[in-house]
Amino acid sequence: MYLLNPKSKKPLHIQLYEALKKEIASQHKVGDKLPSIRHIAAEYHLSKTTVESAYAQLYAEGYVESRAKSGYFVSALYDEDFAHPSPPLPTPKAKKTPYRYDFFPAQLDKESFPLKLWKRLYVKSINESIDFGAYPNGQGELGLREAIAHYLNHSRGVKCDASQLVICSGFSDAMGLLAKLVRHQYSHFGIESPGYHVAKGVFEAYGYSINHIPLSPQGICLDALKTSAAKLLYITPSHQYPTGITMPLSHRLKLLEYIDQVDGLIIEDDYDSELVYANRPIPALQGLDKHHRVVYMGTFAKALSPALRVSYMVLPPRLVETFQKSPDANFSRVNLMTQLTLEAFISGGHWERHLRKVRTLNKKKHNLMLQLFQEHLGNTYHILAQGGGLAILIMPSVPFDWQKFHTLLAKHHIKIYLAKEKSGGEFEAIRMGFGGFSQEALKEAVEVFGGVWRECI
Amino acid sequence: MYLLNPKSKKPLHIQLYEALKKEIASQHKVGDKLPSIRHIAAEYHLSKTTVESAYAQLYAEGYVESRAKSGYFVSALYDEDFAHPSPPLPTPKAKKTPYRYDFFPAQLDKESFPLKLWKRLYVKSINESIDFGAYPNGQGELGLREAIAHYLNHSRGVKCDASQLVICSGFSDAMGLLAKLVRHQYSHFGIESPGYHVAKGVFEAYGYSINHIPLSPQGICLDALKTSAAKLLYITPSHQYPTGITMPLSHRLKLLEYIDQVDGLIIEDDYDSELVYANRPIPALQGLDKHHRVVYMGTFAKALSPALRVSYMVLPPRLVETFQKSPDANFSRVNLMTQLTLEAFISGGHWERHLRKVRTLNKKKHNLMLQLFQEHLGNTYHILAQGGGLAILIMPSVPFDWQKFHTLLAKHHIKIYLAKEKSGGEFEAIRMGFGGFSQEALKEAVEVFGGVWRECI
Repeated sequence: MYLLNPKSKKPLHIQLYEALKKEIASQHKVGDKLPSIRHIAAEYHLSKTTVESAYAQLYAEGYVESRAKSGYFVSALYDEDFAHPSPPLPTPKAKKTPYRYDFFPAQLDKESFPLKLWKRLYVKSINESIDFGAYPNGQGELGLREAIAHYLNHSRGVKCDASQLVICSGFSDAMGLLAKLVRHQYSHFGIESPGYHVAKGVFEAYGYSINHIPLSPQGICLDALKTSAAKLLYITPSHQYPTGITMPLSHRLKLLEYIDQVDGLIIEDDYDSELVYANRPIPALQGLDKHHRVVYMGTFAKALSPALRVSYMVLPPRLVETFQKSPDANFSRVNLMTQLTLEAFISGGHWERHLRKVRTLNKKKHNLMLQLFQEHLGNTYHILAQGGGLAILIMPSVPFDWQKFHTLLAKHHIKIYLAKEKSGGEFEAIRMGFGGFSQEALKEAVEVFGGVWRECI
Repeated sequence: MYLLNPKSKKPLHIQLYEALKKEIASQHKVGDKLPSIRHIAAEYHLSKTTVESAYAQLYAEGYVESRAKSGYFVSALYDEDFAHPSPPLPTPKAKKTPYRYDFFPAQLDKESFPLKLWKRLYVKSINESIDFGAYPNGQGELGLREAIAHYLNHSRGVKCDASQLVICSGFSDAMGLLAKLVRHQYSHFGIESPGYHVAKGVFEAYGYSINHIPLSPQGICLDALKTSAAKLLYITPSHQYPTGITMPLSHRLKLLEYIDQVDGLIIEDDYDSELVYANRPIPALQGLDKHHRVVYMGTFAKALSPALRVSYMVLPPRLVETFQKSPDANFSRVNLMTQLTLEAFISGGHWERHLRKVRTLNKKKHNLMLQLFQEHLGNTYHILAQGGGLAILIMPSVPFDWQKFHTLLAKHHIKIYLAKEKSGGEFEAIRMGFGGFSQEALKEAVEVFGGVWRECI
């Protein structure tokens, strides 16, 4: 006897399915024959379709099996464990960073994100006229691409229009896209040594051979490049990672000429040129290129927020075509709402205002850190790079007990970052980030750091 | 004579840089010697550092070159084109879909997105306690992972905890991550034929060999799988793409047993099980697996919005470890704000309420479409799949003039989608999507479509 209620909001076939399931679990054993569809339909005044639906569900879930011309039977595969899924495993607790002073070199000031403005723009930009039921433009929203192209044209000397831009969810994502686009043309990936490990990692994952090209004082060494197999080259010409070298124009032109001769391609990573404050940022290499030999990579992670997960790349026209024919062009990589808010942020002039604000803020902290080093480290260090980004690179200029240094840092809960951890090779420097500290906190942090440092001389 | 104003907000070295640049452009020719640093410093009462900064910038931008012990000269590389970047190329206009009736099978109802609630949750979730200066958790926010794990446990029978989840920016992104994680273990990628082309495309891009495994009426054909080289297998067991087959339990268990024997791995794509409304969705294959042989893929694109660009995967414990050691674990793939809003949406019970709402809405449209087919196509068609997702699959059951059909569709601005376009092979079906239409619009669309259809019989 199945208790079915035709007035319930629950469909009859689901009610019947549940009743049958209960009956199987409590009254039947494997192999028992179940009542026929016809029988149940007649007994309970149900349509045949309703009963079939209930049996179909029991069949799909493995409670019953069907034998040709004989009807339904309790399945041999009926599985107690399936009917009663085991409880989930315990969830691990979130790990908190135990450091008291963290000199992370890519940390932005927590307070600098324009939170109220961003929320206001979000609420304003996200409205009923947007189709949330459709897949957004795979290349990124046109309006956002136009806003970025305009900014790049007049602030970074990049020659491009919106059709050349692809909006990506961070640098690795953009590099992965590019690795797919050019892998039929190039098999070797040239990178500055020392250089940015993340860039290398992405191309390695796609099977490229890696060529490490040493640096000259002007940036990547051209002679070494010429003797390597790399025609595809990843560089950071505005502010070399991690040494901070700015590649002079003469060198840029020679490099572009060579790359054009060998039918090559340059990936220009302009990751933090917005944050150069000792001088004005030098215009992008891409703007000097007359033969469509440069892919330009930019990000909002270093000056606005890494939590946004928005970056972009500017492709030469021939790669735009390749991209548009690729499967990646079908799916946007970034949340539509984030794109629309960012478009409003840039178009409304807030992005450039924000850049001026963070440049001033960072310059203050940068200069404060220089002054604090002078105060607490005296004449026991030298500076390897300064004047841009979110870190100053230093090294001891006197004999130094590194082992004691690391022990004491751990004891005082201080976290520092060595350049070679992320760029490999022989480049020795401590990347002292100031971005995450308030000015007051920076004073305290460098004072404690200086105490440790002096014990190791 | 350089006009420098010490009271200006513009730093002196920038003022000097601009004055020198102007002088070079208007008064000098290539090779001219420029005043020495010492001379300018003395003449204008500036520090040597200020003048050096101005020259450094001119050097970096290529206006001047430095000769050892002789000073600075106007550079031979000075380039008019560089000083005056050419105007940007014209921006192409956005292309609008010209179709009047678009039966796109993955379109959601525009109105079904909970816009006001979403904005409210966004504004509430995004607050001062969040660190916008830091890189978010590379695996996805713990809170969001917990909320999804809880939902999967009790609604989909998936056995997992938050530590096994990775939040991704869409299905392709998740598949790309996975392709990297398992490529040292597997070289062949098995996929249902017909199957979902996008899945195949991602693994092809990472160099996997593709094995097309035919379907049996129970889903993927086990005998064919056994004779293939594929131990890594991509399947859609809840609602096979595109045929709609639900794999019965007996077949699921046999498949899991085989995959465990050969040390293999199943990728279970559970893309639209939330939208099964003819029966209750069958629990996930992952929940039956006792040997950690299943990666579970889910998405918010089919039931909430494809514009969100949020999907997720559940990894077996050994792959969680591999992931956490990989470079991809360093960078989140999804905007932090979107993650926090989605967490609030799920935790607040809105996701399950929303699912009930869209299931009811889609069921209505689905049944309406069935009724409209009956009305306008009469007995000239048969149904290949129905009862789930956002489309009904049909084919003519009578001789049919396909050429005339396509011509007339174009004439009436009707867009239809053939299953083989996205799944290859021999599977012939028209995937008639109803998700994007209101009920009124659906009536009109199928009426016009029916008129075209009848002319082709």
